Amino acid sequence: MTQIEQPVRHFDYIARGPDIYVESFATIRREAQLDLVSPDAEKVAVRMIHGTGQVDLVPDLVFHPSLVGAARTALMTGADILCDAHMVAMGITAGRLPAGNDVRCFLRDERAVDLAQQWGTTRSAAAVSLWEPHLDGAVVAIGNAPTALFHLMELLTAGAAGPAAIIGCPVGFIGAGESTHAPITLAVDHGIDIPFVTVRGRRGGSAMASSAVNALAQEQE
Amino acid sequence: MTQIEQPVRHFDYIARGPDIYVESFATIRREAQLDLVSPDAEKVAVRMIHGTGQVDLVPDLVFHPSLVGAARTALMTGADILCDAHMVAMGITAGRLPAGNDVRCFLRDERAVDLAQQWGTTRSAAAVSLWEPHLDGAVVAIGNAPTALFHLMELLTAGAAGPAAIIGCPVGFIGAGESTHAPITLAVDHGIDIPFVTVRGRRGGSAMASSAVNALAQEQE
Repeated sequence: MTQIEQPVRHFDYIARGPDIYVESFATIRREAQLDLVSPDAEKVAVRMIHGTGQVDLVPDLVFHPSLVGAARTALMTGADILCDAHMVAMGITAGRLPAGNDVRCFLRDERAVDLAQQWGTTRSAAAVSLWEPHLDGAVVAIGNAPTALFHLMELLTAGAAGPAAIIGCPVGFIGAGESTHAPITLAVDHGIDIPFVTVRGRRGGSAMASSAVNALAQEQE
Repeated sequence: MTQIEQPVRHFDYIARGPDIYVESFATIRREAQLDLVSPDAEKVAVRMIHGTGQVDLVPDLVFHPSLVGAARTALMTGADILCDAHMVAMGITAGRLPAGNDVRCFLRDERAVDLAQQWGTTRSAAAVSLWEPHLDGAVVAIGNAPTALFHLMELLTAGAAGPAAIIGCPVGFIGAGESTHAPITLAVDHGIDIPFVTVRGRRGGSAMASSAVNALAQEQE
């Protein structure tokens, strides 16, 4: 049917998708300090590295001991996935989701624009307030805005229903490192114990957050 | 109209979007080795760092001397932007595009699925063959698949019409570094001189590619 011609192969490279995955994961397992994470979190770390090409990521990862079990159970029982950015939502592989889970992002909701202006905050942070009807038992995936993670922390300390798990990987130079410290200390400082994975420092991003979701969605790589 | 309450601010952080941009760019300019890139490419490098939180990126960046002028002129005159992944397309800020440029991605085109199977390659690579009617004078943004960049190189050496500029930032452990070498040597090896920006090694990603587009779309930060 299609009349498109295959160009001549000039370069020597692995072209089959499944082979690329297998070789990539093997390379990561050879090179990354995966002994620093617990065995059940190993596949999550591998995929977070895979999504970002950064084999030196592991020392900066912080996994709550219940993260994998909590997130996987939530996803299997149909939890919504709440994303701070459409790029995060776009990176989630629908075919890996175990229960046709809804993936939601409210960044383009016009209420987010209004609230951001009223509150003097970012649209990403204001959009987190629109998560509230969906937050109870959800899996949160933050891969862009430190202000979104701070805002979520403030909603939770103000009494909002807790998500089942928080993937907190905002990126950048203003607040990223500080914001990822907040879920780590949430239990000690505020008695709110929600499983999380987060990244110390400035690294993060939508690919890292969606890769974590994709790893948690299925045991199988 | 909206009855949503602002949570109490518990953390000390910069919340206003414009302030975050200004402070982020200032931090990058203090820390990154921006003297390694030409003055006209400086803002592109800053935004690529900004999108990924990696201040040590500059030594791995390779800018063709005509990249900024070629891409900016193309975008101002309405060039299409061709993306290998929907995440790249999603990261492009429509409001910064100077001519309402079309942003295209063919990854979900059913022909890409068929061609990938026929050719024994990835869907990302096969989708690049669907760029052909739009390729002449376009701006290409590859932020995911090394196979897409290899495939583009093979289309070009097979005689396809050239894009105005190539942003080649695939990511990963299999082929990323090798694929980004290909545009660098395209002029010498094949006499095809197309302006590019690319990244040596494994780093890259959709945020990096879309950040480069966003920087090239407008002189103003």
